[in-house]
Amino acid sequence: MGALADRVLQGDVRAAARLMRLIDDAQPAAEGELRVLFPSTGRAQLIGITGNPGAGKSTLVDRLIAHLRGMGKTVGVVAVDPTSPFTGGAILGDRIRMQDHALDPGVFIRSLATRGQLGGLSRATGDCVRVLDAMGKDVVIVETVGVGQDEVEVCRLAHTTVVVVMPGLGDDVQAIKAGILEVADLFCVNKADREGADRTVRDLRQMLELSATEREVAIVKCVASQGEGIGELWDAIEAHYRFLQGGPGLLQRETQRARFELIEILRDRMLRAAVERLTAQGAHLDELALRIARRDLDPYSVAEEAARG
Amino acid sequence: MGALADRVLQGDVRAAARLMRLIDDAQPAAEGELRVLFPSTGRAQLIGITGNPGAGKSTLVDRLIAHLRGMGKTVGVVAVDPTSPFTGGAILGDRIRMQDHALDPGVFIRSLATRGQLGGLSRATGDCVRVLDAMGKDVVIVETVGVGQDEVEVCRLAHTTVVVVMPGLGDDVQAIKAGILEVADLFCVNKADREGADRTVRDLRQMLELSATEREVAIVKCVASQGEGIGELWDAIEAHYRFLQGGPGLLQRETQRARFELIEILRDRMLRAAVERLTAQGAHLDELALRIARRDLDPYSVAEEAARG
Repeated sequence: MGALADRVLQGDVRAAARLMRLIDDAQPAAEGELRVLFPSTGRAQLIGITGNPGAGKSTLVDRLIAHLRGMGKTVGVVAVDPTSPFTGGAILGDRIRMQDHALDPGVFIRSLATRGQLGGLSRATGDCVRVLDAMGKDVVIVETVGVGQDEVEVCRLAHTTVVVVMPGLGDDVQAIKAGILEVADLFCVNKADREGADRTVRDLRQMLELSATEREVAIVKCVASQGEGIGELWDAIEAHYRFLQGGPGLLQRETQRARFELIEILRDRMLRAAVERLTAQGAHLDELALRIARRDLDPYSVAEEAARG
Repeated sequence: MGALADRVLQGDVRAAARLMRLIDDAQPAAEGELRVLFPSTGRAQLIGITGNPGAGKSTLVDRLIAHLRGMGKTVGVVAVDPTSPFTGGAILGDRIRMQDHALDPGVFIRSLATRGQLGGLSRATGDCVRVLDAMGKDVVIVETVGVGQDEVEVCRLAHTTVVVVMPGLGDDVQAIKAGILEVADLFCVNKADREGADRTVRDLRQMLELSATEREVAIVKCVASQGEGIGELWDAIEAHYRFLQGGPGLLQRETQRARFELIEILRDRMLRAAVERLTAQGAHLDELALRIARRDLDPYSVAEEAARG
């Protein structure tokens, strides 16, 4: 235990990749390594990038990486791709574009997918962020696909959450309604060369005013595909981070994140213990499921039994 | 224990509403009631409706309810609205439209939001579906907002999952790439009076062929706002359900659902047990979180300790 972790702490890329694979596969062996890494975490600046599919998040992240590299900062990216629940295969799609940075040792990109129900997506994301943090990356970006509940939760891991929208709200406004508004520290109106960009900025501004949030939420316009506005976006992210550092905000966020992650880790750990106990008693999940489907058993009694130990 | 459940079984709407509130609030008291209801479940036909925000799912569900009522079927709806993680308030938005059915005792609509991290959204959805099933609703529809990981998981609860898209893929195609394709039993191209509807049907057809799925996935065109194509949609849903009933498919789905729900219930139950144990030892979550944020403690050791009991 800890052999992989020691190599990660020395910046060994292959060890990091291997540890993240263990995390993605929800292998219990990852935990011992993460425990060793833990004291060396807490140094990276964590950024969440979320928004509807099609808003251009991948291109934006790509440009942001280039900008940060230009400043001499090292970057880690966790791209959270929801997975087909049946095949378990991650759809990497436009991840390929990020291969521009494949030969740059200052950049580490990892796509994450949920492989099964026994390990949660937000848990795995948090653990991968920790690996990149422990490796010494200056900035770690978590990019989500989609804007579901899980994606909103993933944002809790970040110091600064950027919500990417594009002109012509419509779809986006619904997504924003759906809970994302209050996790946004910053809005980025991407594809701002399209018609309606200023209108979108106004709409967002109005929505923020109506929401009566006391937080200052900046709105930045970008054309990521042309590299326009990336410097301004980074400046706004930096300004938000400095704001957190200058007051109680940073510790509050860290504590909120720790609480969130502790619960996720507890949840997985306890579930694993329960499944192991059931299996040791000769009760396999598939068999229990069949009996429940036939109404010979009810799941609440099974859970009660497992909790009693 | 079981007093509410007995009233639900007699069709008492207020008791059902109260039990669903307990479920939504993740109150442990709900479990005893659900256990009493369990043997009376398994009769309803379960339908999942998912797709990107803006695809017109609420209108479609609204029209589907009217169609089913016209056939004399009773209907339950669980509308899964992601919630602001900070305020905990569900955004009901266009739910209001469904108030058309508010005075119809044959229809029961419940919006669900996640109120906190200690109880999962898919768990609560499954439990509410069970209440509606036990109440004797002929058809139970689960409607999701968005297409994140949680939404894909919610689809596992259904016998038939309908993915709603609209003409002019673009955004939708990304959502479909993102894992939803393989949970679709049926595609509904809504707003089919818009340009590009036939193109979208062709694109979907091609995507299905490329995916090499052996399942027969129908594609139905609708203009939900005009009530067009709703009958055809229902016929396609029925055809899929009859296909499941005629072979091993139905028991397979029920078993898959039972396995999924058992794990969710176990996860919640075990987490609750762990939190109770930690609290009894004088270790409160918020305090642990602060110590983790300060790196005085690591979350893996806390979880290990809690699992050891």
